Amino acid sequence: MAMLERINLQSDVAVFAQIENEVRFAIASGDLKAGDKLPTVRAVAEKLSINPNTVAKAYRDLEIMGLVYTRRGMGIFIREGVEEKCQAECYREIICKMHEVVAEARAAGLKEADIIALAKKCFASKTSPYDIPPAALLSMLRGRK
Amino acid sequence: MAMLERINLQSDVAVFAQIENEVRFAIASGDLKAGDKLPTVRAVAEKLSINPNTVAKAYRDLEIMGLVYTRRGMGIFIREGVEEKCQAECYREIICKMHEVVAEARAAGLKEADIIALAKKCFASKTSPYDIPPAALLSMLRGRK
Repeated sequence: MAMLERINLQSDVAVFAQIENEVRFAIASGDLKAGDKLPTVRAVAEKLSINPNTVAKAYRDLEIMGLVYTRRGMGIFIREGVEEKCQAECYREIICKMHEVVAEARAAGLKEADIIALAKKCFASKTSPYDIPPAALLSMLRGRK
Repeated sequence: MAMLERINLQSDVAVFAQIENEVRFAIASGDLKAGDKLPTVRAVAEKLSINPNTVAKAYRDLEIMGLVYTRRGMGIFIREGVEEKCQAECYREIICKMHEVVAEARAAGLKEADIIALAKKCFASKTSPYDIPPAALLSMLRGRK
């Protein structure tokens, strides 16, 4: 699964939260659709070399959120009709975070053009949300007044 | 002080952290310069109707960070030569946050144009980083596929 490629065991974001996010984002984007089966707990744990309990916790949380359901002996599946709700929630979180970082950047004296250039470079970098930004990004605003 | 206008007692961000951020951002932007005096603990506490200990904690943290110093009986002042260091740190935080939110937005299926439009609207809204985004922002990405 493409989503598992982005998990970063070195990130400050807890691995169970990364797994939850990846499933939520994939539902929001349409990459995961109603009826799609999630990889088994064991497969994910083996692929990422992590404790199966971490994966089980993420899947349990997703079930509590109402996004997936378990068919005994069959596996865990994306529920019907969750795309819109999941999308609305993901977008709301993204808007709140973007609002916060842009307002901070403005308070720190950055101009609109700097902020837009930064956002574009971030988009182009195609890195995982759980990775440290590449050096080219980190050096981007240096020496500005 | 303009910085105190942005403090929001209803925010999830602790008030002492908001005060620290506001001072740091103001140093980074050049609004606060070496030798400038911070408002007294009592003045800030009265203006915001908060416990003076909250303000004292923020000022103590800023002193530990090396950004301000106390002249006994005179008050608390911005140190010489901290602008560049403070700016570099603020920019680094902003880049990391922007990288995270843009990568999440991309994972959730948003296109570059959506993300740039969102960043522009956030900049134009001129709200505090500690405020909930205005309704016009929150409804911005609705109904997208």
